Amino acid sequence: MAMVGAGQLARMTHQAATSLGIELLVLTDSTDAPAVRAGCEYLLGSHESLDDLRRLALDCDVVTFDHEQVPPEHLEALEAEDFRLAPGSAAKLMAQDKLHARRTLQGLGYPVPEFAHATTPDEIKEFSVRAGLPIVAKAPRGGYDGRGIWTISDLSEADHLLAGVQGGLLLEPSLAIVSELAVLVARTQSGEKVTYPVAETIQRDAMCREILAPADVAPELAAEATRIAASIADDIESVGILAVEFFCTPGGLLVNELALRPHNSGHYTIEGCTTSQFEQHLRAVLGMPLGLPSLLAPAVATANVVGREGGGDPASRLNRALAVPGAHIHLYDKETRAGRKLGHVTVCGQDPGPVRKAAQLAASELEAASL
Amino acid sequence: MAMVGAGQLARMTHQAATSLGIELLVLTDSTDAPAVRAGCEYLLGSHESLDDLRRLALDCDVVTFDHEQVPPEHLEALEAEDFRLAPGSAAKLMAQDKLHARRTLQGLGYPVPEFAHATTPDEIKEFSVRAGLPIVAKAPRGGYDGRGIWTISDLSEADHLLAGVQGGLLLEPSLAIVSELAVLVARTQSGEKVTYPVAETIQRDAMCREILAPADVAPELAAEATRIAASIADDIESVGILAVEFFCTPGGLLVNELALRPHNSGHYTIEGCTTSQFEQHLRAVLGMPLGLPSLLAPAVATANVVGREGGGDPASRLNRALAVPGAHIHLYDKETRAGRKLGHVTVCGQDPGPVRKAAQLAASELEAASL
Repeated sequence: MAMVGAGQLARMTHQAATSLGIELLVLTDSTDAPAVRAGCEYLLGSHESLDDLRRLALDCDVVTFDHEQVPPEHLEALEAEDFRLAPGSAAKLMAQDKLHARRTLQGLGYPVPEFAHATTPDEIKEFSVRAGLPIVAKAPRGGYDGRGIWTISDLSEADHLLAGVQGGLLLEPSLAIVSELAVLVARTQSGEKVTYPVAETIQRDAMCREILAPADVAPELAAEATRIAASIADDIESVGILAVEFFCTPGGLLVNELALRPHNSGHYTIEGCTTSQFEQHLRAVLGMPLGLPSLLAPAVATANVVGREGGGDPASRLNRALAVPGAHIHLYDKETRAGRKLGHVTVCGQDPGPVRKAAQLAASELEAASL
Repeated sequence: MAMVGAGQLARMTHQAATSLGIELLVLTDSTDAPAVRAGCEYLLGSHESLDDLRRLALDCDVVTFDHEQVPPEHLEALEAEDFRLAPGSAAKLMAQDKLHARRTLQGLGYPVPEFAHATTPDEIKEFSVRAGLPIVAKAPRGGYDGRGIWTISDLSEADHLLAGVQGGLLLEPSLAIVSELAVLVARTQSGEKVTYPVAETIQRDAMCREILAPADVAPELAAEATRIAASIADDIESVGILAVEFFCTPGGLLVNELALRPHNSGHYTIEGCTTSQFEQHLRAVLGMPLGLPSLLAPAVATANVVGREGGGDPASRLNRALAVPGAHIHLYDKETRAGRKLGHVTVCGQDPGPVRKAAQLAASELEAASL
């Protein structure tokens, strides 16, 4: 099978594919990409080139994705040529276009944040009157890890922001968020699916920094998140892993975003669940029997290793991180840049508190990489 | 770091190295080797060529092994040239020469089977009078998976057997074996070490077919096996993983063989223990802090997938094996040959019985590969 993109998600998918003896071919524009450095077979090319995507698809029975950045029109073109994509272009668009996703989910009756689409300063002003300042503005396409998200506290910024994006802005109120939850659903083309335990994600600077499983929320809330995630998977006919991100607000759950691929919020499944999200994605995309999603320990915590300004290679402090008992370390073999996800650490155990502290400790050892 | 050999042990070591961001370079004479097919960096060459071994060592800080087949004199030569081997040549010889190992262990006071070294038919006859027929004869060097082991029931076979081996035969009585146990010890050059739970290995046709952990033996017996294994690791100054294989006889424990590398009896550690033997081998060889060896479930069973006469590719029945709940499947991407280890399956759970049955079922699905 083929995967567009060769980042850390492809790298970990390659590891899972190796165990199962499945051949994986990734499309990458760089031989320095994490999956390529881990030895995954690759095709050099760009995910923005329909020709390159076609070359990739010609070699494989099915094409899946490591990211959301393939132009939707290319996916539609590939499907028109009878190449099999998993997920298909219509489902994938739910992760590629935030405005489309918001409208579709609202239309299907799912709880979503109040929102508006603004293409003029006046529309931004109008929304701010209704929702109150500050408001949050998002580029409908292309953003991730805090990129493409802005807080508007002063309407004089509106002009400048609108000039910088194509297709206007998705606006939402500055929500009172109690916590953020994520649920992974694996689904095959024929509709078999399994749902993973609800996890809490902890963000900092609009980037996911920690994942705690199971989420410490009321059972009814967890059941509701699970029900919504599974139902969305069926409604949009996702294939492979679908990650549904929720805002937990005083008024209840709101669906924030979808990802249709293995997702950062599911890294805890590698050591924390019977079947990792990467193996599960392979199984689901290839239409094989799905694996058990059950948690293997009462508490699982994952902490991302995020590059710091002037930081060196986390591998230079591997020693110190390995000294943390029970720390499962994953380094992505990427060059250090501030704000870049360079790896993650997972710890499993009995008590959420110590488990989380251990994961944080090992990750911060790696982040404080010596130059 | 470098590893001589590119079989399934190197393949799984590559997966562990990928997680830790450690660069692994393997020496292989074939680009079809399991580790190479998984994308591990490789150097083409022979483990029997001192020049090739030297080329490998020149690129790396330390050299370790996927098998026991490197000529001992080459290892000594490399050490004389100040290349670092882990384990060192003297320790490695304990896995390379069964007669040397038997004599050394006996000299150190460890319980070993009665044995003799025979280079003439008369010496075989003499031992048979003492031990009774049938007796077991082993080639001191080069055997594995049932190769290099013979049962002598008729002394007229002695001539023929002796003609086929260099350096005579290691003879032992046909022992009354209640069960076979294996203990893994990871040890660093500076002497830190951890010992894994005692596992039972089930052999068929002199090849390990199943591994059950923890072994269902009296706690005193398990403690004794653990003590002996850890003590041997210190005595021979092993570095990396040492596997100590025991015969459990009515008269007590006897040390059978040693392996100084990740070992088939330790495959259960990938999903069954906090730290897999492959990651632990990397940590130990590189002098990094060792990981916890603790079991993650009350019962863990591994079943090998062994090629059958006329069998096809196990990957062709991956679907059926994945349908077994909780089955963790590892395929080595090797061409099917009768008696060849092609993969393994591990299942973790609460009860030894169902766990073992599930592992057997998934493995036999893979073995019955369609043509």
